[in-house]
Amino acid sequence: MTPEEFRAHGKQVVDWIADYLAGIEAHPVRSQSAPGDVRAALPAHPPERGEPFEAVLADLDRVVLPGITHWQHPSFFAYFPANASGPAILGDLLSSGLGVQGMVWATSPACTELETVVVDWLAELLGLPAHFTFAEGSAGGGVIQDSASSAALVALLAALDRAGGGVPAAAGLSGRHTVYVSSQTHSAVEKAARITGIGAENVRIVDVDPHTLAMLPADLDAKIAADIAAGATPVLVCATVGTTGTTAVDPVADIGAVCRDRGLWLHVDAAYAGVAAVCPEMRWINDGVAEFADSYATNPHKWLLTNFDCTVLWVADRAPMVDALSILPEFLRNTATESGEVIDYRDWQISLGRRFRALKLWSAIRWYGAEGLRAHIRSGIALAAGFAGHVRADERFLLHEPHPFGLVCFRPLWTGLDVDAENAATLAMLERLNDSGALYLSHTKVSGRVLLRLAVGVPTTRREHLDAAWDRIREEYEGPA
Amino acid sequence: MTPEEFRAHGKQVVDWIADYLAGIEAHPVRSQSAPGDVRAALPAHPPERGEPFEAVLADLDRVVLPGITHWQHPSFFAYFPANASGPAILGDLLSSGLGVQGMVWATSPACTELETVVVDWLAELLGLPAHFTFAEGSAGGGVIQDSASSAALVALLAALDRAGGGVPAAAGLSGRHTVYVSSQTHSAVEKAARITGIGAENVRIVDVDPHTLAMLPADLDAKIAADIAAGATPVLVCATVGTTGTTAVDPVADIGAVCRDRGLWLHVDAAYAGVAAVCPEMRWINDGVAEFADSYATNPHKWLLTNFDCTVLWVADRAPMVDALSILPEFLRNTATESGEVIDYRDWQISLGRRFRALKLWSAIRWYGAEGLRAHIRSGIALAAGFAGHVRADERFLLHEPHPFGLVCFRPLWTGLDVDAENAATLAMLERLNDSGALYLSHTKVSGRVLLRLAVGVPTTRREHLDAAWDRIREEYEGPA
Repeated sequence: MTPEEFRAHGKQVVDWIADYLAGIEAHPVRSQSAPGDVRAALPAHPPERGEPFEAVLADLDRVVLPGITHWQHPSFFAYFPANASGPAILGDLLSSGLGVQGMVWATSPACTELETVVVDWLAELLGLPAHFTFAEGSAGGGVIQDSASSAALVALLAALDRAGGGVPAAAGLSGRHTVYVSSQTHSAVEKAARITGIGAENVRIVDVDPHTLAMLPADLDAKIAADIAAGATPVLVCATVGTTGTTAVDPVADIGAVCRDRGLWLHVDAAYAGVAAVCPEMRWINDGVAEFADSYATNPHKWLLTNFDCTVLWVADRAPMVDALSILPEFLRNTATESGEVIDYRDWQISLGRRFRALKLWSAIRWYGAEGLRAHIRSGIALAAGFAGHVRADERFLLHEPHPFGLVCFRPLWTGLDVDAENAATLAMLERLNDSGALYLSHTKVSGRVLLRLAVGVPTTRREHLDAAWDRIREEYEGPA
Repeated sequence: MTPEEFRAHGKQVVDWIADYLAGIEAHPVRSQSAPGDVRAALPAHPPERGEPFEAVLADLDRVVLPGITHWQHPSFFAYFPANASGPAILGDLLSSGLGVQGMVWATSPACTELETVVVDWLAELLGLPAHFTFAEGSAGGGVIQDSASSAALVALLAALDRAGGGVPAAAGLSGRHTVYVSSQTHSAVEKAARITGIGAENVRIVDVDPHTLAMLPADLDAKIAADIAAGATPVLVCATVGTTGTTAVDPVADIGAVCRDRGLWLHVDAAYAGVAAVCPEMRWINDGVAEFADSYATNPHKWLLTNFDCTVLWVADRAPMVDALSILPEFLRNTATESGEVIDYRDWQISLGRRFRALKLWSAIRWYGAEGLRAHIRSGIALAAGFAGHVRADERFLLHEPHPFGLVCFRPLWTGLDVDAENAATLAMLERLNDSGALYLSHTKVSGRVLLRLAVGVPTTRREHLDAAWDRIREEYEGPA
């Protein structure tokens, strides 16, 4: 494809996307596709001869769109949003157009240096400490990862390296190592424990407060002590700011004090909620981070107007991470690396290759400015609070509180049913709601009860969408009752 | 940003990229930027108020471009190319525009199902066996990963699971496990061994043939036997089709026979060269794969006109991989997953979240067709052969043979220097060449000697670029001599 063909087809694609975004409400939120529908509509064999680009666009409408669950639909409330925005999409397009691969500084200095600037900007916007930035004298810094899963894995590898003085990466893991989470921690930490050879069985589930669902530091300390007594090596605690289930906030400072006493790595997973700290009134979510966190991750792609994938991981000390992940094969040796003056981000992540992801975050921050980012977060919190008000006012529903961010959890109250039957009725109602195509919710389970999850955050969601959602939920509740 | 603003700015970006691609030869191939230049040219603080999109584009020209090493420049020969093409860039743009997150089938059926179709298409194009596809009765299948590093890590986790009956992921790794590579294997396998807790010291370096640099199966078998005798558990062998250093091809069939006898997992890393099998005359590179490979990875982003990131990993049996990587938290439970009728790709990769990468590969395959893909590979091989002819004909240079793909390795012959001084002279010459901005080469080391690496593959590279490169190399050789 020549540059001129690219120019022509590129404009067709831009128009297609603009039309898609403008007309997104005409689609059912969750795809109505059945397993195998999309596959069956596509040719079993690749084309022998090239096809015009229009054929791809036609199949996009005919085959792909019916199989799409519309994450940018204003009534998409199921998961923390994949928070796309125009400037971020265009930043990503610029990244694809430049086509650079930033595995080391030398393979495109701008890819690395713009990233160091943008993660510093974000640290400043969120009020994170200077030792997480590349400021003069800092031993830490930030990096863009594909997801909070990878960030947790990198943090765990750094923690293992620090605990074992580099031995795990070199000689292999030996002895039993333990990791501490709560029942509300994201499954990514267990997955990281499986991947690193620690094993799922060595992930300890620390008790939570039954109301707030926040991790209990005293139980954490007791579990660590028991593991030490049993001969294990405790390695890392993951504290969560804004859990996936209900956006519970673990007490980072108290957990951090335990970590410091016991010599464990504190990873703070603020994947969804961390970006809320752009607003001064939400800055409390950083309590304890500056004093105690060894690593901290948040996802602009969840709630900061940046399309997936964009997780920022900061570390207070990059040495153990680089020690765990660095290998320098001959073909990557270069003067800049050997000078020690540059960052080679390949040593900050699992893979060697890396895209120029900083462009999309840079583009989003510049287009919206700090002001615009704050307005987006505030809008999500206010809309969620408004919806929660509907739930609270209706005695047929139970609201889960607190709900400090954009997520509202609640459940319908059924009469005359035992817990299992209640859960089944709630899940059946959820299924009917999602099948309707009018909105898309998800669920979680707390103390054995299924709760519905309604997550606000798509930039185009307005009050009318939440009011319509509430109407639909009440209708579904009343309908089969 | 509204859809109409997106439409307007999107077209500006498309024009910017088209102009960039049309004028790319005006830039020095390797950035002339010094450490800190880009960072220093950017504001230390994020903007308080939003800025017009034109400001981003202006800074792209002013700040970013000087810090870019131009991977799409026709004289970029340093690394296996980041093989961008117009249709792939636009496929990626469509992915960003749709903004879906395909962690499970239900979060966008088309994201999963188009991927199953496209990886099947690619398997057919490359002549890979049916048990790597989703054909009826197959226990295997393919998945798009970000890079061959991740693919190797997933393969290793699956191998550990199979060797340990699921114990490593559950109870943690215990005992000593060993992995087998050659001195030419990509460092990603050692990195995977570090990450999984096997440890770098348990990666055995199998001897290679001193001329072809291909792994010696007899030495592999002897090393496995010695490890078993010493009480270790051998887990995986990585055979490479087209090594990074010199595109050596390991004897997959003979290595596979050893793996089968000894019960090891055979992972075939064909990251760069695997896609050459689109050409029937290159199909020999698949010898032994159908009979013996448990997993196979190749990167359309290296040489098949698809922009980074796009690695395809196929497995013959998906069960151990899914067993190693699957966790099902409550918020991801859904009817489709529980039906067992769908693929949930989150269990095929390290992270939970995933982009809709299939669109770019689909778009590239459809635009070029099998014919166009073959023409691209053949052009790369022919251009490399032509350049190798120049080297072979000049007695002042030594050509490394064979060079079956698009990479040519060679070295200048210096007179009156010992090996260290020769290497230093070659590296100094490389530095001067790259500093010139006229072309970009890299290097490797074979038997203690530095070789220059010239990798052909950028779609716009023509014979004149290689002739110019050869002229420049001879001038540099003659200049300081």
